[in-house]
Amino acid sequence: MTEKTVLPGVLIASGNWAPEPWALPFTSEPDRPLAIWPDVPDRKAIHYVLAWRPPSEAFTNLPNLKAVFSLGAGVDHVVGNAALPDVPIVRVVDPDLTTRMTEWVTLQVLLHHRQHLAYARQQAAHQWRELRQPVANDVRVGIMGLGELGRDAAAVLARLGFQVAGWSRSAKSIPDIETFHGEDGLTAFLGRTDILVALVPLTADTRGILDASVFDRLARNGALGGAVLINGGRGGLQVEADILAALDDGRLIGASLDVFEPEPLGPDSPFWDHPRVVLTPHVAASSEASVLADSIHRQILDFEAGKPLANLVDVSRGY
Amino acid sequence: MTEKTVLPGVLIASGNWAPEPWALPFTSEPDRPLAIWPDVPDRKAIHYVLAWRPPSEAFTNLPNLKAVFSLGAGVDHVVGNAALPDVPIVRVVDPDLTTRMTEWVTLQVLLHHRQHLAYARQQAAHQWRELRQPVANDVRVGIMGLGELGRDAAAVLARLGFQVAGWSRSAKSIPDIETFHGEDGLTAFLGRTDILVALVPLTADTRGILDASVFDRLARNGALGGAVLINGGRGGLQVEADILAALDDGRLIGASLDVFEPEPLGPDSPFWDHPRVVLTPHVAASSEASVLADSIHRQILDFEAGKPLANLVDVSRGY
Ligand SMILES: NC(=O)c1ccc[n+]([C@@H]2O[C@H](COP(=O)([O-])OP(=O)(O)OC[C@H]3O[C@@H](n4cnc5c(N)ncnc54)[C@H](OP(=O)(O)O)[C@@H]3O)[C@@H](O)[C@H]2O)c1
Ligand SMILES: NC(=O)c1ccc[n+]([C@@H]2O[C@H](COP(=O)([O-])OP(=O)(O)OC[C@H]3O[C@@H](n4cnc5c(N)ncnc54)[C@H](OP(=O)(O)O)[C@@H]3O)[C@@H](O)[C@H]2O)c1
Repeated sequence: MTEKTVLPGVLIASGNWAPEPWALPFTSEPDRPLAIWPDVPDRKAIHYVLAWRPPSEAFTNLPNLKAVFSLGAGVDHVVGNAALPDVPIVRVVDPDLTTRMTEWVTLQVLLHHRQHLAYARQQAAHQWRELRQPVANDVRVGIMGLGELGRDAAAVLARLGFQVAGWSRSAKSIPDIETFHGEDGLTAFLGRTDILVALVPLTADTRGILDASVFDRLARNGALGGAVLINGGRGGLQVEADILAALDDGRLIGASLDVFEPEPLGPDSPFWDHPRVVLTPHVAASSEASVLADSIHRQILDFEAGKPLANLVDVSRGY
Repeated sequence: MTEKTVLPGVLIASGNWAPEPWALPFTSEPDRPLAIWPDVPDRKAIHYVLAWRPPSEAFTNLPNLKAVFSLGAGVDHVVGNAALPDVPIVRVVDPDLTTRMTEWVTLQVLLHHRQHLAYARQQAAHQWRELRQPVANDVRVGIMGLGELGRDAAAVLARLGFQVAGWSRSAKSIPDIETFHGEDGLTAFLGRTDILVALVPLTADTRGILDASVFDRLARNGALGGAVLINGGRGGLQVEADILAALDDGRLIGASLDVFEPEPLGPDSPFWDHPRVVLTPHVAASSEASVLADSIHRQILDFEAGKPLANLVDVSRGY
């Protein structure tokens, strides 16, 4: 009698996202146990958790857990988990996700730069009127976060002609981009920035970073006549009351916000109707399961073939 | 007694644009006669006309005319002039103008690709809802016109991930861009195009080219679920009734129009209130006098120093 080979099992705990597309690549392996939270018949079989906003119970009592795969690029939803086990955490780094974020950031930068909201109001009023328009070369974009996403958006915006700078934790050198880093570099970075794009992860250090003290330091007399805030990172980065106050008193002339805390944004939030705010429902760079599930599956097969895991999170830093 | 050196004179006929900024660089040359249409004290002194939508009288009776400088990239306003003299016509080719057009085209492509109008409606309704979103790599942009402007927009859109093709009169080979040309190549070009961007000049051959027969041939079942028209060229390229009909029956799912015939667009045009049309008042790439006047002045000095004129128009082709 031959013993049946059982592969290391997978648990999908995908929060508010449908689990099926994430499970799909594993269904081609009949010998791999596959569980969908909260239905975990054999917790000992689980070696990998694929997680999006997992409840802490999804991590407890998994004696053979080898790795956690975050289904998004951000890992605040995992790193902050009270029951986080001491195993490698892998995050999403994928050209599909990066392309989507660069699309969103580029759209939002151009939308404010080219005064789309004002032109849309003129269109509604049947008004044909040219507005004074600086060229990209006169406008300074500052990207907070020069990781996978920030670097790609920076490159496209530089190609479009904007003066692009970036700010990160560690020092960097990137062609065509002026770089700043750390608390010490923040004031100089903000002072030369007309359009601020937040693409930092949400960590203990960055929670609430988009506050009055940042808006106070942004450029005032740039070519756009004021500063713009674009947040494609996480809602927890921003202090909503400070954004509204800065929009009211002119420190900010516009904002594009994709993320909030909590989500969905409450129906009574003043952001919905603000005439200078563009709001999207956390869609800047959605994790496309049909692409990313295959990529996670491949990473697991590589890992089982002895290769090291890539895109590991440093839990002590929080990203 | 020494004779005073008189330089070749300049006439500014700038139509509805303020003449002063175009005249400015020449005011530093006291010996150069400078006239602002319709005030031309000495027609024999005029060697150059700087023209935007000039009346035909601005060209008549100028016995010493050497060259006409169009103040815009498009020259339909000059080439069609009944009194066009047989002198070189120079048009604007300048990085400032190209950057502006690429900004506008990129904004309009992303705006439709990322379903901005639908998200703006959801924002107005306080509705938090994610829409199905293809990635740029699944969307095919087709640029009609691979000149100074079309080529630059094509390069940026390819960098963003879109599948970009272009169509021109003569055959071309451009990295990362699929190319088509001539009447024979048009059907294949349109059939692979989800987002059509018009950047051809207005000539006898292109007048009315954006008509039902083009919309019939655009891709129907692409990743966006329909085709989009973006016209940054000239209003005379488009047949307005055909655009409206195509929007109504779904051959077009959206449009961005910067140009019309005549301009300004009449207050009763159905385009103003169309829920899937983005309208801008001929501002896609405005001629920035503070930049372009200096460039024309430099070209004139170079010409007077014996260098050949660049960016000449072929009047028989019309561009
Ligand atoms: N809205 C959406 O749909 C969406 C989609 C995907 C991702 N996101 C968000 O985007 C974030 C960025 O993603 P990514 O893949 O680019 O992350 P990443 O590769 O980890 O890059 C993070 C960047 O932020 C910098 N950073 C982190 N903490 C900092 C601090 N305290 N001060 C200054 N800089 C700091 C890092 O600096 P170093 O380079 O020095 O480490 C790095 O440059 C994710 O964490 C996620 O929250 C949002
Ligand atoms: N809305 C605005 O604010 C604004 C601002 C600036 C310019 N524009 C418009 O943009 C137009 C393009 O400017 P540009 O500087 O890129 O012009 P360009 O360098 O002369 O390029 C024109 C392109 O169109 C192609 N073309 C011309 N006639 C054609 C035909 N019958 N069939 C197929 N292709 C044809 C040419 O083909 P070949 O390469 O084979 O010659 C060339 O690739 C201008 O003419 C102007 O009308 C609008």
